[in-house]
Amino acid sequence: MATLLNASWALVDGEAADTVPLGDRGLHFGDGLFESIRVERGQALLWHLHAARLARGCEVLGMEFPADRLLERELAEVCQGAPEVAMVKLLLTRGDGRGYAVPAGGRVRRIWLLYPLRDDPEARAEGVAVRECRLRLSLQPRLAGIKHLNRIEQILARGEVEPPFREGLCFDQRERLVEATSANVFLVRDEMLVTPRLDACGIAGVMRARVMNVARELGMPVSETEVDHAALASADELLLTNSLIGIWPVRQLGTQARVVGPVCRRLQAACGFAP
Amino acid sequence: MATLLNASWALVDGEAADTVPLGDRGLHFGDGLFESIRVERGQALLWHLHAARLARGCEVLGMEFPADRLLERELAEVCQGAPEVAMVKLLLTRGDGRGYAVPAGGRVRRIWLLYPLRDDPEARAEGVAVRECRLRLSLQPRLAGIKHLNRIEQILARGEVEPPFREGLCFDQRERLVEATSANVFLVRDEMLVTPRLDACGIAGVMRARVMNVARELGMPVSETEVDHAALASADELLLTNSLIGIWPVRQLGTQARVVGPVCRRLQAACGFAP
Repeated sequence: MATLLNASWALVDGEAADTVPLGDRGLHFGDGLFESIRVERGQALLWHLHAARLARGCEVLGMEFPADRLLERELAEVCQGAPEVAMVKLLLTRGDGRGYAVPAGGRVRRIWLLYPLRDDPEARAEGVAVRECRLRLSLQPRLAGIKHLNRIEQILARGEVEPPFREGLCFDQRERLVEATSANVFLVRDEMLVTPRLDACGIAGVMRARVMNVARELGMPVSETEVDHAALASADELLLTNSLIGIWPVRQLGTQARVVGPVCRRLQAACGFAP
Repeated sequence: MATLLNASWALVDGEAADTVPLGDRGLHFGDGLFESIRVERGQALLWHLHAARLARGCEVLGMEFPADRLLERELAEVCQGAPEVAMVKLLLTRGDGRGYAVPAGGRVRRIWLLYPLRDDPEARAEGVAVRECRLRLSLQPRLAGIKHLNRIEQILARGEVEPPFREGLCFDQRERLVEATSANVFLVRDEMLVTPRLDACGIAGVMRARVMNVARELGMPVSETEVDHAALASADELLLTNSLIGIWPVRQLGTQARVVGPVCRRLQAACGFAP
């Protein structure tokens, strides 16, 4: 399956496949949603949180959410024969259809892809260098939080990230920090865990939700709020999270060295991503 | 080719096909561009304007623009055997690739689809009813004007349009009129032709460009400017334009009857879309 670019297995509406029909609305308009799921020893991690975000995305887009059991059955099929650590990507598109108007009786298409995933223990242990992107994310409260297929802004922002940087931090047009190009961001300030509020743009990551819950279990105060440039610059610690990497500390922001601190280590240990 | 939903012919990278590889970045991220081209008696109309917009879109997205001659050869192939009036849709995606980072040495994929097109002489002659959409378009100057594949906003806006309405007018988050869901908008005010400036969002249509040029040839003053609710409400005439429909007058805005006027008729005649 050379066309899948390293995907070792794929399933489209329940059938093994390596293509999608040309009329697919995901292709034509980005009319759909996706999830990137970490798989360890054949088990999908945090599936319930991925499924909940998909369900919310379907509601926002007015798409039918496939039956939970159907998705779980297909997920199990895709995970069969997965290597020790893998990534499963699920795309839900609004099926086939011409024009912006949603076709009556259209059927959501389920596209599963299985990819190998390489862990990066050094990034987890030592932290990564990140920079601020120049691109400003647009504001669209109607789509905030969901993981839809319109991702050109992330591609443009990612294009600003070159080694030694591993990620780019994105601000919105009000100069509020939103997220990294493919991760959420946490700040630690006076032992409080702070993450940008995602009511106007950004993706509400499943690892973001997990980290907030675990922090509360550990008795840490947690705040979703507006984060401006000054708050970012003065944070005690910075962390990046997503469902594939877990938690990465930030050891450098632009040219400035940052401390990899105790809150990061506690959260990594409690979330099962200890370096 | 049932999967193409009425498409009677399709070409992917020069080969007849009805599917696209599952790794396509258009599918995963909406990472690409498109054009909808009117074809009459086997001839593509305004191709040079479509090609120019594609070239600009490629520049904005950092994609390689395929050789003009290659596109023209494929266009001619797709147009062969087209019915009297048809639509050719061209998608340029950034080929295959996993993750937001643009793959080095990636190849742009060319996807051509031929669809039958039904003209609507009544809409052209009598005009259409339109409404204002509630959805507010987000502002993203980096992407303004180009016809990229991230179209969820247009799908949401189109979902607000039900009969008797044929189109919906979209404002941006500053309450400026931008466009209709799949057409540009012109206002006539004191015999001046006015159309929203598209420096923060919206698609700069090829028929919009053609109409502005023709109006100037006819000696009409033309202005690209900010259009607010008051300007819309007080316009002498309202027109919708795109490359498939040509020019449609607006005969009703919400519950308010509007005049189909002489400027519309002059422009329809001069652009070759007389009712």
